[in-house]
Amino acid sequence: MRVIGVDPGNAVTGYGVVERAGTVKYVAAGTVRTQKSTTRPQRLATIYDRLLRVLDRYAPDVMSLERAFVAINVQSAFALGEARAVAMLAAAHRGVKVFEYTPADVKLSVAGYGRADKLQVKQMVRRTLLLNEVGELVDDAADALAIALCHLFKRRSQ
Amino acid sequence: MRVIGVDPGNAVTGYGVVERAGTVKYVAAGTVRTQKSTTRPQRLATIYDRLLRVLDRYAPDVMSLERAFVAINVQSAFALGEARAVAMLAAAHRGVKVFEYTPADVKLSVAGYGRADKLQVKQMVRRTLLLNEVGELVDDAADALAIALCHLFKRRSQ
Repeated sequence: MRVIGVDPGNAVTGYGVVERAGTVKYVAAGTVRTQKSTTRPQRLATIYDRLLRVLDRYAPDVMSLERAFVAINVQSAFALGEARAVAMLAAAHRGVKVFEYTPADVKLSVAGYGRADKLQVKQMVRRTLLLNEVGELVDDAADALAIALCHLFKRRSQ
Repeated sequence: MRVIGVDPGNAVTGYGVVERAGTVKYVAAGTVRTQKSTTRPQRLATIYDRLLRVLDRYAPDVMSLERAFVAINVQSAFALGEARAVAMLAAAHRGVKVFEYTPADVKLSVAGYGRADKLQVKQMVRRTLLLNEVGELVDDAADALAIALCHLFKRRSQ
């Protein structure tokens, strides 16, 4: 099974693709960055269009998304909902099933501790996927890989 | 100039198309309804796909959207943001420019009073667009027409 994790944001959307074929393997990771100078519709179109290309290139079976329950304020909830929506739409348009996990799900399944900090999660992502040689792994891509791993680990334990 | 107003919602998205060619005229209005039994990605895909068809059919120059600043809670802000995002994306994919107005902008420009209630706004929409003969105008479509009219009135007064 191949899983794409997506960490949506209007400025930076991270994605990470992993698969389980015997062991768990890293496939790809990256970010979609949008220009602050462009309109919100154009930024959403950039996220959607780039994610479609990623889906076409890596053909995941499943998209794993973080389901946020809190936001700093209502405005940031609107913005986060917007970026997440275009990720869900790209998945729907490619027939990729979407699963959602809470931040605590992700931390617990990847780092073994529901209140792990970002660095601990990132280190476990590197260790699990043998990424120590790969050099810099940007935070948003690491978060996306953690969200993808969460789905693999949750499904195995069910 | 032809304007589509969109009142986005996960369950019901209203749209209303008006144009000004000398006078202000009604072109079309309707709703996109999604099934509660389907997944969120599928519901968003329904909204996006139907709005694209509406854009292709009526070829508006502009999309007018209500910009909400408040929501009942963070969860409803996420949901509203999601539906609005796919409306903006449809506009971006058809090269239709998006303008946003606050609920007070819409009420003030259509009913002449920033705290007008829904019924007053609906009555002014009917009167402005000579819709008394058309029979039932559902609330979500009336709201969308008001949002479209807001853009026309705002642009005229500038």
